Amino acid sequence: MLNYSPPLSKLIECLQRLPGIGPKSAQRLAFHILRGPEAQARELAEAILTVKEAIHYCKQCFNFSDQELCPICADERRDRSRLCVVSEPQDLMALERTREYDGMYHVLGGVLAPMDGIGPDDLRIRELLARTQSDEVQEVILALNPSVEGDATANYIAQLLKPLGRFRITRIASGLPVGGDLDYADQVTVAKALAGRQEM
Amino acid sequence: MLNYSPPLSKLIECLQRLPGIGPKSAQRLAFHILRGPEAQARELAEAILTVKEAIHYCKQCFNFSDQELCPICADERRDRSRLCVVSEPQDLMALERTREYDGMYHVLGGVLAPMDGIGPDDLRIRELLARTQSDEVQEVILALNPSVEGDATANYIAQLLKPLGRFRITRIASGLPVGGDLDYADQVTVAKALAGRQEM
Repeated sequence: MLNYSPPLSKLIECLQRLPGIGPKSAQRLAFHILRGPEAQARELAEAILTVKEAIHYCKQCFNFSDQELCPICADERRDRSRLCVVSEPQDLMALERTREYDGMYHVLGGVLAPMDGIGPDDLRIRELLARTQSDEVQEVILALNPSVEGDATANYIAQLLKPLGRFRITRIASGLPVGGDLDYADQVTVAKALAGRQEM
Repeated sequence: MLNYSPPLSKLIECLQRLPGIGPKSAQRLAFHILRGPEAQARELAEAILTVKEAIHYCKQCFNFSDQELCPICADERRDRSRLCVVSEPQDLMALERTREYDGMYHVLGGVLAPMDGIGPDDLRIRELLARTQSDEVQEVILALNPSVEGDATANYIAQLLKPLGRFRITRIASGLPVGGDLDYADQVTVAKALAGRQEM
């Protein structure tokens, strides 16, 4: 180990636990914090503590929220006829960034992964079923990643919901990313793009 | 702005101020902190606060330290006959990582940059001169970056030190990086490599 002073070592060690932060980035961040204004460091430390204290799950959609209902569920202008099912709050944010969706969400908290011991009872599927009981819901959009687990989870949920029969069940498209190149895309993506072709 | 809860927004905003952390990384880090154990978040927040409280400059070399003397200056096994001048504590750490140097350091706290109003009095040059008064010092190694400012600073210091005449003044080599390719290197680097050629 290098000759860091213990408090600096400790900070670098803590920063290294964050995703995508290797030893060099952790050092750069730590030195930045050290050299920066005291107030900024304090603000960051307090923001970390506050987020852990104040943020819980929205009781309706299980997005992160500091209120009982998250800002999306609480927003009366949003379209309650569409319910978009995502795996994690990050996925919800990715959809929000498009500014193309103004319906509601439901965060499962993961995907089915039998190999990791994650079954239907570990996800918020029961809560999803309860929400779809409402007559308001006209479409359930499954916005799960196009992966083995995402596919399995989407299929599982679709089969649970279909017998209810009152609403459309859709899944977001999978295919070539915008700017992508047929020649460089993997076979599975090309096959998906082909299978998902639409009338022009 | 996206529909984040205010405490989450605040944390993302604070994280984005760190170097190399853009909006997407900041969100990923914030979600990681949110989802991770409470104890880990608390540890990180405390490490940030502690580092600001406990770490000051080593009174001898101006490296960061939680003691009066940094671990390097306090280490009696280190060779006091060589004094390596660096711009920032990060540069000192880069040299330490090589495990090839066991002398002492002196951290200037920057380089001369007249355009940014940084002159000799803003760097710890007076303190460097005082340290070189000691008869122990036999070599001053200028380990400043091969940039316009680094060159100017190295030349300035060399001219101050030369009249004292009791010790060698050297500068670390500049040339092709290991694994580099003549064909791809910029002209200035190739020229430096050529100028710095050594007998084999």
